[in-house]
Amino acid sequence: MKSGVSIDDVLAEVALMVRPQFGKGRPADYIPQLAGVDPNKFGMAVCTVSGGEHVIGDADEPFSAQSITKLFALGLALNQIGDEVWTRVGKEPSGTPFNFLSQLEYEHGVPRNPFINAGALAITDILLDTVKAPELLVRDFIGMLSGSQLEIDEAVAQSEIDTAHKNRAIANLMRGAGTITHEVEAVIAAYCRQCAITISCRQLARAALPLAADGFSPIAEETIFPSRLTRRLNALLLTCGTYDSVGSFAYRVGLPAKSGVGGGILAVVPGQATIAVWSPELDRFGSSVVGTAALEYFAQLTNCSVL
Amino acid sequence: MKSGVSIDDVLAEVALMVRPQFGKGRPADYIPQLAGVDPNKFGMAVCTVSGGEHVIGDADEPFSAQSITKLFALGLALNQIGDEVWTRVGKEPSGTPFNFLSQLEYEHGVPRNPFINAGALAITDILLDTVKAPELLVRDFIGMLSGSQLEIDEAVAQSEIDTAHKNRAIANLMRGAGTITHEVEAVIAAYCRQCAITISCRQLARAALPLAADGFSPIAEETIFPSRLTRRLNALLLTCGTYDSVGSFAYRVGLPAKSGVGGGILAVVPGQATIAVWSPELDRFGSSVVGTAALEYFAQLTNCSVL
Amino acid sequence: MKSGVSIDDVLAEVALMVRPQFGKGRPADYIPQLAGVDPNKFGMAVCTVSGGEHVIGDADEPFSAQSITKLFALGLALNQIGDEVWTRVGKEPSGTPFNFLSQLEYEHGVPRNPFINAGALAITDILLDTVKAPELLVRDFIGMLSGSQLEIDEAVAQSEIDTAHKNRAIANLMRGAGTITHEVEAVIAAYCRQCAITISCRQLARAALPLAADGFSPIAEETIFPSRLTRRLNALLLTCGTYDSVGSFAYRVGLPAKSGVGGGILAVVPGQATIAVWSPELDRFGSSVVGTAALEYFAQLTNCSVL
Amino acid sequence: MKSGVSIDDVLAEVALMVRPQFGKGRPADYIPQLAGVDPNKFGMAVCTVSGGEHVIGDADEPFSAQSITKLFALGLALNQIGDEVWTRVGKEPSGTPFNFLSQLEYEHGVPRNPFINAGALAITDILLDTVKAPELLVRDFIGMLSGSQLEIDEAVAQSEIDTAHKNRAIANLMRGAGTITHEVEAVIAAYCRQCAITISCRQLARAALPLAADGFSPIAEETIFPSRLTRRLNALLLTCGTYDSVGSFAYRVGLPAKSGVGGGILAVVPGQATIAVWSPELDRFGSSVVGTAALEYFAQLTNCSVL
Repeated sequence: MKSGVSIDDVLAEVALMVRPQFGKGRPADYIPQLAGVDPNKFGMAVCTVSGGEHVIGDADEPFSAQSITKLFALGLALNQIGDEVWTRVGKEPSGTPFNFLSQLEYEHGVPRNPFINAGALAITDILLDTVKAPELLVRDFIGMLSGSQLEIDEAVAQSEIDTAHKNRAIANLMRGAGTITHEVEAVIAAYCRQCAITISCRQLARAALPLAADGFSPIAEETIFPSRLTRRLNALLLTCGTYDSVGSFAYRVGLPAKSGVGGGILAVVPGQATIAVWSPELDRFGSSVVGTAALEYFAQLTNCSVL
Repeated sequence: MKSGVSIDDVLAEVALMVRPQFGKGRPADYIPQLAGVDPNKFGMAVCTVSGGEHVIGDADEPFSAQSITKLFALGLALNQIGDEVWTRVGKEPSGTPFNFLSQLEYEHGVPRNPFINAGALAITDILLDTVKAPELLVRDFIGMLSGSQLEIDEAVAQSEIDTAHKNRAIANLMRGAGTITHEVEAVIAAYCRQCAITISCRQLARAALPLAADGFSPIAEETIFPSRLTRRLNALLLTCGTYDSVGSFAYRVGLPAKSGVGGGILAVVPGQATIAVWSPELDRFGSSVVGTAALEYFAQLTNCSVL
Repeated sequence: MKSGVSIDDVLAEVALMVRPQFGKGRPADYIPQLAGVDPNKFGMAVCTVSGGEHVIGDADEPFSAQSITKLFALGLALNQIGDEVWTRVGKEPSGTPFNFLSQLEYEHGVPRNPFINAGALAITDILLDTVKAPELLVRDFIGMLSGSQLEIDEAVAQSEIDTAHKNRAIANLMRGAGTITHEVEAVIAAYCRQCAITISCRQLARAALPLAADGFSPIAEETIFPSRLTRRLNALLLTCGTYDSVGSFAYRVGLPAKSGVGGGILAVVPGQATIAVWSPELDRFGSSVVGTAALEYFAQLTNCSVL
Repeated sequence: MKSGVSIDDVLAEVALMVRPQFGKGRPADYIPQLAGVDPNKFGMAVCTVSGGEHVIGDADEPFSAQSITKLFALGLALNQIGDEVWTRVGKEPSGTPFNFLSQLEYEHGVPRNPFINAGALAITDILLDTVKAPELLVRDFIGMLSGSQLEIDEAVAQSEIDTAHKNRAIANLMRGAGTITHEVEAVIAAYCRQCAITISCRQLARAALPLAADGFSPIAEETIFPSRLTRRLNALLLTCGTYDSVGSFAYRVGLPAKSGVGGGILAVVPGQATIAVWSPELDRFGSSVVGTAALEYFAQLTNCSVL
């Protein structure tokens, strides 16, 4: 980032700049719990590797983390079994929507990357090899990294489980192909419950600090990921983190990032800071409209793009 | 890059490290002119924004630039008609091989990005709106940026034109869809001739310097791209520059890059340097095996990944 | 058929002619119960509309009816809700394997025809609207038409249910699209149990007689299908009855037919006769190798092709 | 057909019954020559194997034969090289529109059947092995079978050639795959000119008589196709003759048939008669709306369905 920039001033300016973006997207509506969230919410938090913490708006209000949890689940799986993860899932952008199924049929049940639903289900399956409730492992891992106790929203979780037909189709296809080995319902339940973890922008920016700090968590006061793995996670975020709009996102924002249909986006400025933003209205790819704009403006004002 | 590192020492070490990679790939064999190149060639050049120039091996031997020229053609088109380019071509990774056609049929003839063949043909079509021989425009643009006079290898060009059945299929499909407006044969000829431009690693690294220097070319002594466009070109390289192995490439190397089936790869360290590497043997995605390894080792040794 | 031909003589000749075909295919191996059937079995039965019954070989040995049951389930559904069936399933050949899934994703969960797995699951779902155990309805319907009591092989049924991952994927996709409305597990169980009905060639040829006799069953002594529906069922068999080899099958045999992975094939000579043949070894499309050859020779010798 | 039925009476009744179908489709509009045809035209001709000839309406007015010519071109190719044809083209329904291209990319450039554009281009390529102008061969073959001199509409031919972008894409893809061996432009020109042959219903019904008469042409007074090949051509018509509505067509009409975007449909009642109908308005699959209805009513009234 440009030296001499006041992050608080930048956040205040960004909050003004994004105003015209409200009303352009639509909150996730596939379950009532997400459809009912106030669309005008907006929060943003920046944590620097040097310990700074800057927030604006609804930065302390918990929202549904959804797909952002996939990043942490992947981190756990890589810490557990290392590169063996890549025998079960690829690391290429899919070029297709996050819940696309046909690619799996053509490619022998191996998902393109760990951030589309199919890939995240494969990661859940890996975690199920060692624990009974991977969603609690993920919840407590993010909690530990954020210095707080996180919750799973049981109403959201149940609603996701009840309507997860497409994910069940995906999981059954992978079960038939052998890339999922546990009972489909166990995988689906753990996955849906993991998606239902709630978190605030401040907690999320804190939890992601290892990705900006070469693998070290200043909150947990320990090294979470080896340096090389940290870069690789950032590479995966940049090429696969925002579904089938990953090219446009890199073009506009230029930072590794992971979005979720709860309206949250997590972005990383390697070596410097993490940024978490939340606003519920989504574009047609499933990323927050206001959140993407906020990150774009932030990157412009601070000159923090990696590119 | 790590301060205090000697780039010459790094290049010497990289040249040793890549030795076991020879023989693992295969030179492009679709035309005799490429199949006949000595597979043991290896050259590498690094140009820094501060004016440094470091080379090793066959860094001054011209090779067939092929798809690497697509980057410069895109730059010209963006300078000419700006964001209108994005009405004719997308900016998302395709998830499919560089000469894939079916995606075009499903998506109304709009190519996913300007670096797959379909997208590059659309860019050629745009350039044909203003000049009769876009390949000469591209050749002279790269030449000006590299401070040298570049040539088109007429034998390569003719051979490409003679065997361009798949590209003709793509171009005719786009002509039918209206995303190509000029005569198919004119587009094919200009495109094939552009791909047949020859260049050395040193020339290529020089030519790309604007991408590392916020749009300024120290060779041409002028600003070539606006600052924002420079970042965006780097973003496109990172998410779309190495065909359907873009995720793995970012995972291994972590730099914006463009590869060509002539065995060349161009990489950018924004704010610092450009790197050009050449070795003819290709992986199954069409990128140089030794070249990719060389960039991976270089990035490790100098700590220059953007991620 | 040619007048003056002795069907018994023809069957004897066909049994000789097919001998070289044994060993060219492979029995279904996805469940142990089918893999274990003696591959040298061969039975054939012809029932004429005038009451004749001609058999050869293992024509009275029960085998797993599998997909052949789909024809009778469709007949029941059409009798129940008429053309409303065609709002839930198409009537076009799929051009793809019987358990293909991607087509469903592209076409909003509407299966191409009632004889691919997806379409048969939709028919099961329709039958579930009115009965709890559609497989028993289908079993008793075929039984009534064949004048015998048929059984469901419970070991086959259970094995199918245990391994029906792909069908579960298909059913969940359709559940999400709304083309399946009942619980996926209920649909899968009924479908798998229906496929596990066992039947002999003689019983099958008897049961199909309404398709040759303008809708009338001489066994049940009642009109089962209206005349027009009878023709339409035959049309569906001819264009969709033998999976993605329907063109080759019509080219070789020229009769409406339905095959099953148990090795049975049912063919209809409208106005004249039905033919059931059984031999377990399958071609790569899932139809009996020896059975197809037997029908081809029978059609040649009797000149009974509809074309 | 029902004995005792007067075909003239049936044709008169059919002409009344189809009246409500006018205005439901749209004439082909991709070239002005087809778009300009009077949409209210309707002609129908029936030729029986016993020498009868029955017509109604505009049965003697020439129209653009278009894809109906593919049947005769296939017949010529099969007579020339026999089953070798099937090494260059399949015999399965495609499940996709007549000008679909992606299937070719997935299946190594081998078209699904000789009646989709890709398959017809392959047949043209086969004919080019022995003659310079296959379209004249096809024209004279149909002419000979119909007892008349047929013409190629040069304005239609030129317009087709000028706009054949999709067919050029298809042909170039096949050229790259080796399933087309002659110059693409030569294949395209011959194919487009063949499609531009004009013919009347009466001429068309006469020309097709060998398909109803076991291969014998009463007009040419010679055997045109061997008996077995005749059946096989009818099988191909039934499973592949009406594009991706082949299932619905068989369901409604139950006769082997070939349609063309000029509004003509040719149908065969094996052993009995041929029927040609023409009316320009097309359904979304490219078959005449009024023509299909006319054939459906004719088949009902005469009970001539093969099923």
